Amino acid sequence: MIKELLNKYGSPLYVYDKDILINRCNEMVNFKNKLENNLNINVSMHYSMKANENLSLLKIIKDCGLKIDSMSELELYLAKLAGFNKEDILYVCNNITEKEMESVHDNNILICLDSISQVETWGKNFPNSNIMVRVNTGILGVGHSDKVITSGEVTKFGIAISDINELFNIIKKYNLNIIGVHEHLGSLFLNDKMDNYLKGIESFLKVVVSYFPSVEIIDLGGGFGVPYKDEDRLDLNLLCKKLTDLLKQYIKQLHLKEIKFEPGRYIVCECGKIYGRVTSIKKDYIGTDIGMNVLIRPEMYDAYHKIELFPKRDTKIITTNFCGNICESGDILGKERVVNTPEIGNSVIVYNAGAYGYSMSSNYTGRLKCAEVLIDNDKDILIRKRETIEDIINLQK
Amino acid sequence: MIKELLNKYGSPLYVYDKDILINRCNEMVNFKNKLENNLNINVSMHYSMKANENLSLLKIIKDCGLKIDSMSELELYLAKLAGFNKEDILYVCNNITEKEMESVHDNNILICLDSISQVETWGKNFPNSNIMVRVNTGILGVGHSDKVITSGEVTKFGIAISDINELFNIIKKYNLNIIGVHEHLGSLFLNDKMDNYLKGIESFLKVVVSYFPSVEIIDLGGGFGVPYKDEDRLDLNLLCKKLTDLLKQYIKQLHLKEIKFEPGRYIVCECGKIYGRVTSIKKDYIGTDIGMNVLIRPEMYDAYHKIELFPKRDTKIITTNFCGNICESGDILGKERVVNTPEIGNSVIVYNAGAYGYSMSSNYTGRLKCAEVLIDNDKDILIRKRETIEDIINLQK
Repeated sequence: MIKELLNKYGSPLYVYDKDILINRCNEMVNFKNKLENNLNINVSMHYSMKANENLSLLKIIKDCGLKIDSMSELELYLAKLAGFNKEDILYVCNNITEKEMESVHDNNILICLDSISQVETWGKNFPNSNIMVRVNTGILGVGHSDKVITSGEVTKFGIAISDINELFNIIKKYNLNIIGVHEHLGSLFLNDKMDNYLKGIESFLKVVVSYFPSVEIIDLGGGFGVPYKDEDRLDLNLLCKKLTDLLKQYIKQLHLKEIKFEPGRYIVCECGKIYGRVTSIKKDYIGTDIGMNVLIRPEMYDAYHKIELFPKRDTKIITTNFCGNICESGDILGKERVVNTPEIGNSVIVYNAGAYGYSMSSNYTGRLKCAEVLIDNDKDILIRKRETIEDIINLQK
Repeated sequence: MIKELLNKYGSPLYVYDKDILINRCNEMVNFKNKLENNLNINVSMHYSMKANENLSLLKIIKDCGLKIDSMSELELYLAKLAGFNKEDILYVCNNITEKEMESVHDNNILICLDSISQVETWGKNFPNSNIMVRVNTGILGVGHSDKVITSGEVTKFGIAISDINELFNIIKKYNLNIIGVHEHLGSLFLNDKMDNYLKGIESFLKVVVSYFPSVEIIDLGGGFGVPYKDEDRLDLNLLCKKLTDLLKQYIKQLHLKEIKFEPGRYIVCECGKIYGRVTSIKKDYIGTDIGMNVLIRPEMYDAYHKIELFPKRDTKIITTNFCGNICESGDILGKERVVNTPEIGNSVIVYNAGAYGYSMSSNYTGRLKCAEVLIDNDKDILIRKRETIEDIINLQK
């Protein structure tokens, strides 16, 4: 199957499994339903589309009953094209221009603004409107890399508690209505960090009760992790139970109509793999055609992705590094992996590539962006064509 | 001028200065001529096009008399389209497929192979042919980040000295002819590391004399640095003098016809700037529309780029961080910069963005790739159109 797909669509190739995607969506829907029942409040799951913006995947996610979270004009356009209703789209942005704000406003999309400066710009242009705001309670977030910890004093996100009076002055000045408050605590927590996550949520809830007691919406962001190595899966039942207990203490002091979440990685990560090929074998390195242009996470975040070779062979077991085909020494796909010695032309499978894979890919060193294929009941469907040389040249004509 | 360009072509925008590009090319040509005169051997400067692959810039570089170095099929195609002759193109690659080798061979381009495994693959397909090989002498390279040090025991590049006998066996088996030997020692050295660079070159020359005494070509790679902060410029006269002295000691033991260099950054870095806009101002942060999708170097390599605001203002001086518009805390353009407090809508200029800027850019978070403009005698010429939503959608139809 792997070799057939590579021959048919070229290498390297992003391949998504529809069943896995639907499973993950359903888990999120179940989580939502349980929490709704427990708390008797609407809960919305907004898929954070920056993880993967493929239109066909967006449509599946929509059909599973999820909402969506966009952060650029193109993302908004794609969300609408995938069939999401305006009321199901949330625009959670950072440092956007007036022109972008206009487009969000004209589309009648709820916006979540994350600095006093952006609230001021919005207010000037659209007084008497509803907004959400992102706060930064100052508690350190949880993340798989410093680059993705999105709360705490060191980050660029959110309105600090010390600035809330200034926020209220601007709100008053432009007669804005803060209908929701948001905090995103970071990225990729599993069971071992669940309590840190909940501690962050509690700090946030205290801030909401103290400063925003009349909001309708709280948005707890995303961050639900997936096991890249062989960790235990995030215990969603336990998380739901703990969140219920925690939220119950606070929401009686509030007038909430809705609790939002913004999972991204959890939904799309595990359904995606990259297929590629072994191109060279040398001491300490297996060379492949999966470079940092295809998957930047290992170089960027020192991220771990499981790698397998196919077909399985009965050869000598070696400890080796996998690397790509880019002339840059950081172009390493995986360090110190234990595998059977492959042959040139063998297939390489990189797991958990559905999130922040294609969406962060580039044309570095003149490599064309990959095709994307969806596996639906053993049928393979091309859901994004491979880029062509013409695509690159056309912009330069 | 800045504001006019942003209004005309949109923001953010890559802007290149033709005069600066030509100056840098001329410096490389002068360096080449001097070294040729000193040594009485042909010297070739191959522009390493992965730094910037814009066709219009490639044509200017060609017209200045430089040759070129490609490392993918698209790069090879663009080099030919820009008018480079086959004999002026060198293919310096890492872990490429048989199919790519075929395309290089069919185009009659000289290839530089960097592992025994790749030499074996080449030999099987194209016995009795000329090749260059990349060696790794094991000496630690020089680089601005561990991710770009390309020699030394830790890297994925080159054939180790301990494997040279095996190389010779394969060479013999397929009757290949090693006409050149290459080593690239790293990236971005300035005057303070010139002696380290020369030490690396000397180790390489010793290897050439010992193991490859009959080659026609040695390729010393690139790595000539440019001042990103306000360091002194690389002293090319001194470098030429020191290289002359060093090379003279060794080339009398060789039968060289040509010495190659592969500068990339030195040629294009300083001619390129990014223009963008201030979108928000908050404590400790100035938000802009220049995200990590536009310029990944600050997040990827912790690289420093000089940033200025325009127009100049007489406001309070602050120490602040510049960031982009991407929902990721690592999306920081510049840390702890001292500037006059700007206004929203002011222009932002990021310097030294001509190398590894556009070529590493992506569509992360649904941002369209920038336009590129060339300034030629006060005329602005669009040399790459801004991507459109249609460009993104078309591949998914």
